[in-house]
Amino acid sequence: MNLDCPIPYGEHELVQLGHGAGGRLTAELLDSLVLPALGGPPDAPREDAALLSGTDELVVSTDSFVVSPLTFPGGDIGSLAVHGTVNDLAMRGALPIALTLAVIAEEGLPLTELRAVLDSAGKAAHQLGVSVVSGDTKVVGRGAADRLFLNTTGIGRRVPGLTPSAAGARPDDAILLSGPIGLHGTAVLSTREGLGFETDIASDTRPLHRLVLSLAPLGGAVHGLRDPTRGGLAAALNEIAHDSRVGMEIEEAALPVPAAVAAACDLLGLDPLTVANEGCFVAFVPADMADRALSTLRAYPEGAQAARIGHCGPGLAGRVELRTLMGARRVVDMPLGEQLPRIC
Amino acid sequence: MNLDCPIPYGEHELVQLGHGAGGRLTAELLDSLVLPALGGPPDAPREDAALLSGTDELVVSTDSFVVSPLTFPGGDIGSLAVHGTVNDLAMRGALPIALTLAVIAEEGLPLTELRAVLDSAGKAAHQLGVSVVSGDTKVVGRGAADRLFLNTTGIGRRVPGLTPSAAGARPDDAILLSGPIGLHGTAVLSTREGLGFETDIASDTRPLHRLVLSLAPLGGAVHGLRDPTRGGLAAALNEIAHDSRVGMEIEEAALPVPAAVAAACDLLGLDPLTVANEGCFVAFVPADMADRALSTLRAYPEGAQAARIGHCGPGLAGRVELRTLMGARRVVDMPLGEQLPRIC
Repeated sequence: MNLDCPIPYGEHELVQLGHGAGGRLTAELLDSLVLPALGGPPDAPREDAALLSGTDELVVSTDSFVVSPLTFPGGDIGSLAVHGTVNDLAMRGALPIALTLAVIAEEGLPLTELRAVLDSAGKAAHQLGVSVVSGDTKVVGRGAADRLFLNTTGIGRRVPGLTPSAAGARPDDAILLSGPIGLHGTAVLSTREGLGFETDIASDTRPLHRLVLSLAPLGGAVHGLRDPTRGGLAAALNEIAHDSRVGMEIEEAALPVPAAVAAACDLLGLDPLTVANEGCFVAFVPADMADRALSTLRAYPEGAQAARIGHCGPGLAGRVELRTLMGARRVVDMPLGEQLPRIC
Repeated sequence: MNLDCPIPYGEHELVQLGHGAGGRLTAELLDSLVLPALGGPPDAPREDAALLSGTDELVVSTDSFVVSPLTFPGGDIGSLAVHGTVNDLAMRGALPIALTLAVIAEEGLPLTELRAVLDSAGKAAHQLGVSVVSGDTKVVGRGAADRLFLNTTGIGRRVPGLTPSAAGARPDDAILLSGPIGLHGTAVLSTREGLGFETDIASDTRPLHRLVLSLAPLGGAVHGLRDPTRGGLAAALNEIAHDSRVGMEIEEAALPVPAAVAAACDLLGLDPLTVANEGCFVAFVPADMADRALSTLRAYPEGAQAARIGHCGPGLAGRVELRTLMGARRVVDMPLGEQLPRIC
């Protein structure tokens, strides 16, 4: 997305893990290969969900889930698949009206595990009041997949008045963050690698549609929304800065990084800004409406720690800067992408 | 689907290849595990696509594709993924208005192969006049997936007047088949196993929406439509017989089985009735409209070999019988499911 002139891939180039990590390599793959192949407009904003033209404000979003392990503190691949897709709809101001769920299972997976994961998906959908209306089950031989992959596609309808877009942020907008960062990625990584942090850290996987709905009274003043999943807050802000052609400045002191996440990141050499989240979003609203939006978000448990973390500013369009605790400035780059594979 | 009293799975039972093959084991898994987990009504007809309540006649369908090899005579996983989902919409009388496409790629897959497959998907969508509006790309490490899996979800709108349903077939309906059977499954199997038939046999993968649209003047007389993919014609007929609570009788002499398919099935010990197809459908219409429907279908290249293969009859509801070339009768069972893994 920050790549203005993608270079075509050579004949011997291979898919790398980083191509799926939501950072610069993913953006390159989209620009150089996926969008040209599928006929997508290369310069269009990268939205979390697409408006369906010719319908009554319906939006659609698809996501596959390959998280490993299947179960982690705070959730599992089933609830994650439901929340992830519902949240992508919410980032376009939409509430879910239907979900599809497709299973690719490896031969030999215990049926009790499949059942547990699907129970979890069903429970998550039920709590949202949305039905799984279409499904599919494929099985591949032992060794041809790692246990279980899911795909969810969501169809939603926009809340009247809400029109957030990746291209909607404006200079002087305040940047709000609905909750703490770094929990999902560190929880999954710690569980997978047996690092021991998982006793202190649980994934933040949860639906965000209620928080988005609470912002409906602000209407068109909700310029942009994005949930910082793969690539973390760094990727989310860079994407919006790119698509909205604005500069951004965020304050390190204002970032809600839980102590356990900070400790884990310190030890593992990770930057909390690039760690995946599954239960928070950034919102771009006019500065004079920031306090109202914040108090609205804080009225909900999932928004209790909402914070104003910075503002769009006069800086170079597309560039995200961080003011550190020491008062210095550094550029927050789009992560390259290889940091944490199979996090969602 | 022919399982009236599913037995809950035990603690040590594992996912088998047959659970994904579209036959009896798949039906058992759906009845015993998937539908209870996701809160689906266990006795509802199994439609190819779901009507979205509260919308203007929109339908949705999802499918994952794990076919191996990725490319086979007549098509590849990219075109197959587009055709497969568009055809599921068509089986509900709907034309596609949007597609989503999600990629799960294995680290190390040559980017040229990914590009070829996505080009093929893009071309197939373009030919249908439908856009891929939302996508997703995940990458898993070497050995964690077999090269490439795709998911497509389609959103379509029903053609006014068409209301085909898996539960819609009626006693005395004629059973029509829009084209020859057995091509897709034998083409993929032959390519995968290097059997040599692939010089004579190409997959029939193609979109069927135009044929379905041509039936629109028959309106509500198009009682049921189904494309016999996994599990072949045997599974498709058994599903409709079950959901519509009708008996069926088909004529072996009327079945369009290409000579090369018959030869391949003979050698491999396969029954052409259970081999997957990707470019034909069965239609259930009143007997007195069968000739009109047939001549309509035959006006299109993809329907040129359309044939009347049998009728719903007074036999036991839910049972499908075949009258053989010798005049004998045999029951066409729902296939168990293990015959041909990773065919789509």
